Amino acid sequence: MERPRHQGMAKNTYMRWRLPLVCLLWEAAMIVLFGVFVRFGAEADAHWEEEKQEMNLTSDIENDFYFRYPSFQDVHVMIFVGFGFLMTFLKRYGFGAVGFNFLLAAFGIQWALLMQGWFHSFKNGKILIGVENLINADFCVGSVCIAFGAILGKTSPIQLLVMTLFQVTLFSVNEYILLNLLHVKDAGGSMTIHTFGAYFGLTVTRILYRPNLEQSKDKQGSVYHSDLFAMIGTLYLWMYWPSFNSAISDHGDAQHRSAINTYCSLAACVLTTMAFSSMLQKKGKLDMVHIQNATLAGGVAVGTSAEMMLTPYGSLIVGSISGIVSTVGYVYFTPFLESRLHIQDTCGIHNLHAMPGLIGGIVGAITAAAATEDVYGKEGFIKAFDFTGVYQTRTPSIQGGFQAAGIMVSLLMALAGGAIVGGILKLPIWGDAASENCFEDDVYWEVPEDEESDVYHMHNPDKPASP
Amino acid sequence: MERPRHQGMAKNTYMRWRLPLVCLLWEAAMIVLFGVFVRFGAEADAHWEEEKQEMNLTSDIENDFYFRYPSFQDVHVMIFVGFGFLMTFLKRYGFGAVGFNFLLAAFGIQWALLMQGWFHSFKNGKILIGVENLINADFCVGSVCIAFGAILGKTSPIQLLVMTLFQVTLFSVNEYILLNLLHVKDAGGSMTIHTFGAYFGLTVTRILYRPNLEQSKDKQGSVYHSDLFAMIGTLYLWMYWPSFNSAISDHGDAQHRSAINTYCSLAACVLTTMAFSSMLQKKGKLDMVHIQNATLAGGVAVGTSAEMMLTPYGSLIVGSISGIVSTVGYVYFTPFLESRLHIQDTCGIHNLHAMPGLIGGIVGAITAAAATEDVYGKEGFIKAFDFTGVYQTRTPSIQGGFQAAGIMVSLLMALAGGAIVGGILKLPIWGDAASENCFEDDVYWEVPEDEESDVYHMHNPDKPASP
Amino acid sequence: MERPRHQGMAKNTYMRWRLPLVCLLWEAAMIVLFGVFVRFGAEADAHWEEEKQEMNLTSDIENDFYFRYPSFQDVHVMIFVGFGFLMTFLKRYGFGAVGFNFLLAAFGIQWALLMQGWFHSFKNGKILIGVENLINADFCVGSVCIAFGAILGKTSPIQLLVMTLFQVTLFSVNEYILLNLLHVKDAGGSMTIHTFGAYFGLTVTRILYRPNLEQSKDKQGSVYHSDLFAMIGTLYLWMYWPSFNSAISDHGDAQHRSAINTYCSLAACVLTTMAFSSMLQKKGKLDMVHIQNATLAGGVAVGTSAEMMLTPYGSLIVGSISGIVSTVGYVYFTPFLESRLHIQDTCGIHNLHAMPGLIGGIVGAITAAAATEDVYGKEGFIKAFDFTGVYQTRTPSIQGGFQAAGIMVSLLMALAGGAIVGGILKLPIWGDAASENCFEDDVYWEVPEDEESDVYHMHNPDKPASP
Repeated sequence: MERPRHQGMAKNTYMRWRLPLVCLLWEAAMIVLFGVFVRFGAEADAHWEEEKQEMNLTSDIENDFYFRYPSFQDVHVMIFVGFGFLMTFLKRYGFGAVGFNFLLAAFGIQWALLMQGWFHSFKNGKILIGVENLINADFCVGSVCIAFGAILGKTSPIQLLVMTLFQVTLFSVNEYILLNLLHVKDAGGSMTIHTFGAYFGLTVTRILYRPNLEQSKDKQGSVYHSDLFAMIGTLYLWMYWPSFNSAISDHGDAQHRSAINTYCSLAACVLTTMAFSSMLQKKGKLDMVHIQNATLAGGVAVGTSAEMMLTPYGSLIVGSISGIVSTVGYVYFTPFLESRLHIQDTCGIHNLHAMPGLIGGIVGAITAAAATEDVYGKEGFIKAFDFTGVYQTRTPSIQGGFQAAGIMVSLLMALAGGAIVGGILKLPIWGDAASENCFEDDVYWEVPEDEESDVYHMHNPDKPASP
Repeated sequence: MERPRHQGMAKNTYMRWRLPLVCLLWEAAMIVLFGVFVRFGAEADAHWEEEKQEMNLTSDIENDFYFRYPSFQDVHVMIFVGFGFLMTFLKRYGFGAVGFNFLLAAFGIQWALLMQGWFHSFKNGKILIGVENLINADFCVGSVCIAFGAILGKTSPIQLLVMTLFQVTLFSVNEYILLNLLHVKDAGGSMTIHTFGAYFGLTVTRILYRPNLEQSKDKQGSVYHSDLFAMIGTLYLWMYWPSFNSAISDHGDAQHRSAINTYCSLAACVLTTMAFSSMLQKKGKLDMVHIQNATLAGGVAVGTSAEMMLTPYGSLIVGSISGIVSTVGYVYFTPFLESRLHIQDTCGIHNLHAMPGLIGGIVGAITAAAATEDVYGKEGFIKAFDFTGVYQTRTPSIQGGFQAAGIMVSLLMALAGGAIVGGILKLPIWGDAASENCFEDDVYWEVPEDEESDVYHMHNPDKPASP
Repeated sequence: MERPRHQGMAKNTYMRWRLPLVCLLWEAAMIVLFGVFVRFGAEADAHWEEEKQEMNLTSDIENDFYFRYPSFQDVHVMIFVGFGFLMTFLKRYGFGAVGFNFLLAAFGIQWALLMQGWFHSFKNGKILIGVENLINADFCVGSVCIAFGAILGKTSPIQLLVMTLFQVTLFSVNEYILLNLLHVKDAGGSMTIHTFGAYFGLTVTRILYRPNLEQSKDKQGSVYHSDLFAMIGTLYLWMYWPSFNSAISDHGDAQHRSAINTYCSLAACVLTTMAFSSMLQKKGKLDMVHIQNATLAGGVAVGTSAEMMLTPYGSLIVGSISGIVSTVGYVYFTPFLESRLHIQDTCGIHNLHAMPGLIGGIVGAITAAAATEDVYGKEGFIKAFDFTGVYQTRTPSIQGGFQAAGIMVSLLMALAGGAIVGGILKLPIWGDAASENCFEDDVYWEVPEDEESDVYHMHNPDKPASP
């Protein structure tokens, strides 16, 4: 069977030379830059035996690898299986969801190792990497995966790579401002990952607004099996979120506490999501869109505060609220954003990442401002907020103020950056599909000829798109 | 397309106010109770720096977090993905399987943190929690997931929440009797989790007996893809079971040994399951029901003894036997239970959890009774069975007797508790579906209108169910 | 509905007595051999308390369990979910892919514990096992899973068990020659696992050549959903490969370094795979076969060198090259191998394991030959290559020569062993299916009667197979 060609009159989706060129040139650039800059950190270098004595460590088990590697692997699963499968809910975009997520994340982690390395691990002209750098690279790419959720189904793989290049860069700048200049705490990334990633993606999708997107409306929904595939993504994100929020916290009690707070917040979030999903539907039935997404808001919303003394009941409160906000968002805000603000948000990242991210930033600011030596202990207080060196005199309320400033900076960076990058992605050279061919794997993928092939109908490009 | 309404003549499955009310009120109760009772344990509290000195620990790596967190995450995956996807085998109940499991487990872990906390982690009026509490809460909920398997497809989400509330409570009481009063060892929960959970669930489903269940027989089977989804659940349970059985064992050799024993038992179990699956089928073909379930019996059956000196060959024997018993159960016992005892066991938990759980309890009692100082070493012997304080004079044979008593107590608690809770669930206020609408997601879920929609046919409630 | 019987004139696929007999007898043999030989190693034995003092360990955390268990679990997932689901891409062989992989791996790990135990962990007449043995058993079985990929869909479960028995045996001999006699480094198994496993499997499938395989060509492809199931396998292999390559490396920096190198190599591999997948297709579309497989070549290709000072940019180079070689292999070599050499390689293991395995061996030899005390440090140099005892005087270039010899030995063992085992599997007693019934679950599995049943058409065995 000969398929109709997809290159519409105005849209050339032919990737054969453009995509390989971008991939190969950029990978070559990575090799050169890694060759010049990236080396093993002390704990991964073969000189470790000697370093160990210098670092006064008595056992190999005190290598940072053993503190963080299990969490790293969990985070890794979240980025590739979690985000990848969460987005397979669309009936005919499973390949693109999981495959493009794979592509952009694989590129993004390399570029993030460099960008974050220059800011945070640069010594004597070299970037020295260890397991914590791998986690941070995954985190950085997480923010790109979030933004991808807003434009899912509407962009070419090249656009995604271009967006990744810029977003990773801006992420690293924003992260540097927050963590180093404002001395803000944000181990689980409510601000740096979620707020930044989500508003960046929402701005990009606003710029890329497609007035005729209803032409592919028949493909914007799920089918029974695709909803189950998406639940794989949901559950892995949900289960491993305690690792996400604790992965780069201080050794010992901070990692321990982050995991507990996140566990509690997520558990509460499931209940309020289910409650509101049923309540907001006329027939009282549960909606898989909410279960797949809003149940995760509890992890986002304690991203900043999980390593603080938020306490388990504080986590339950935050998780409960974020589940409600997120579910309400899916029912009311997403349609509003699309119809009034022309923000077409395929996965509803506004509900899963943007609003809960803001909540997370605010909760973090409050929790920091409310910290006392009594609750943290004298040593614990200094360690938790790193009130050493030039920050020795910072008080909790000042810290709370800086945390709040961090939210604003992340927001501004996201809106400004998203506008610029959206503008770049709007150039007619990247090979995105016509609106009637959105949400359709057949544009960029070899799709097997199977019994389900009659599900989708490619529009004839020879006919005008609008009636 | 307008779907027929599902509220049969006698059955009102409308969830809109009931489900949200239960979820929100109970979550509010959790917040209050957590606020009053739950605090961080010493190893998760910011005072850890000071505690560390008191506990005489030289490094952050000796925080219990690093001993148990990887196992915790594996157990977490078993509860949510393992049990959730294992139950997606039904052709039209995938949303309910994975979604309701998500709901009940998310509520259950919160309530379990409280119940188990009052019994085991209560100090100066506060429940002090750490990673071990999270594991135990997951374990407790595991027993609810097991019971869910028996009533899968036949109950409303509210019934499941009510069952969870009571079962977690009874689980905690039973666990307290076994571990504290009888001083029984049961780290992998053959008795506390599997025997208790399975007989509880079987009793509940007996009380909820539906004489007309054959009306939904066309939906009780699997389809090709749903069997593959279920295998995701199976494999994650199988692979991570060594973590399940070792997660709360003593640090060091006990955790190490538990993992090895469980690994061996499960490997053997696969072979005998395959053998009997083929042997008991006329055409000699393998049955996915057996592969999905009976292969796991080996993990259940070493739940008590894995941390003891069961030895690898002992594990192979136990695993081999349990695979046979479980597979035979699916072929002969399940139909018998349904036709003669009116026990409708959707997932066959009698074969996967009840019988192997009993085997596990018995093997544990024998292994304990056979313990000698020669095999365990002087110190190891005392440590393995915690023969200290008032238990200083216990002999292995007495311990074996108490282990056996633990089986009986678990059984009785399950039967009595299941009868009471089954009676409560029988009240006509919880919104369960009519028998002709069982095993059907459309009752409680928004189901996408897709190409497969013709697979299932909702019975018209206006027509009498039987011809 | 009565299905036609599948036993063609010449082919009896009836498994009822043969499969159970093999499974049960072999499991019984395992029990006896484990009973005679296998005991807990010091770190898993209840005597640990005393051993700890002898081994001069100050804390339970220094038990090898805590260094390796998280990696073990990741490897375990790769073997059972990774390989199992990777092979579910065929439209009607999902049960066989995941189920037979489960069966052969469950048997294989038991036999591998014995075989590898005799060679490596034999003390005073006993095999003493710990977590490292479990990892090595999984590794050994990994090579069988690889070979399974070549013959997927064309063999009976008994043939797979017979192949496993022999392949595990030969693997252990080959491994012993490499690691002990040649003193070669190969922690991630480029040579022992991938090169050996792949060429073994390719030789077996050559011997089992089926001239009429095009009769089942309609079932050799994928369908939309089966490609998504396969991506689960791909991603778990990809994400956990850093654990695979680091699982049995030396404690500390070596494990840390292996993970980083593998992470980098795999990231680069994704980009070059995507590039060549698009470039080699006329319409420039991406092919799921490449994404599912070639993206993993980067993990294979650093299997030997990951624990050495390959450096991150070296890893990027190796990963980039292996992605290209693998993708090109799928497009050009696989059809060539089939048409010219009569090698029918269902999963394309030649591209995913054979060629990248050879690359891995070569890169390892070069990296070893290029090692200097300057790069590794004096102590690190000795530790990395274990230049102690009789190997005290080995130089890097000599080590490089031995590494290269290891490749040749693995190749020869694979070809010779594969030829012999292929010959054994060719005997007409194992119950393999006729060529027109290949790639069809219905031969060995109870397949649910579902809406998709019209997808596959069993050939009438009463009609002659060839026209």
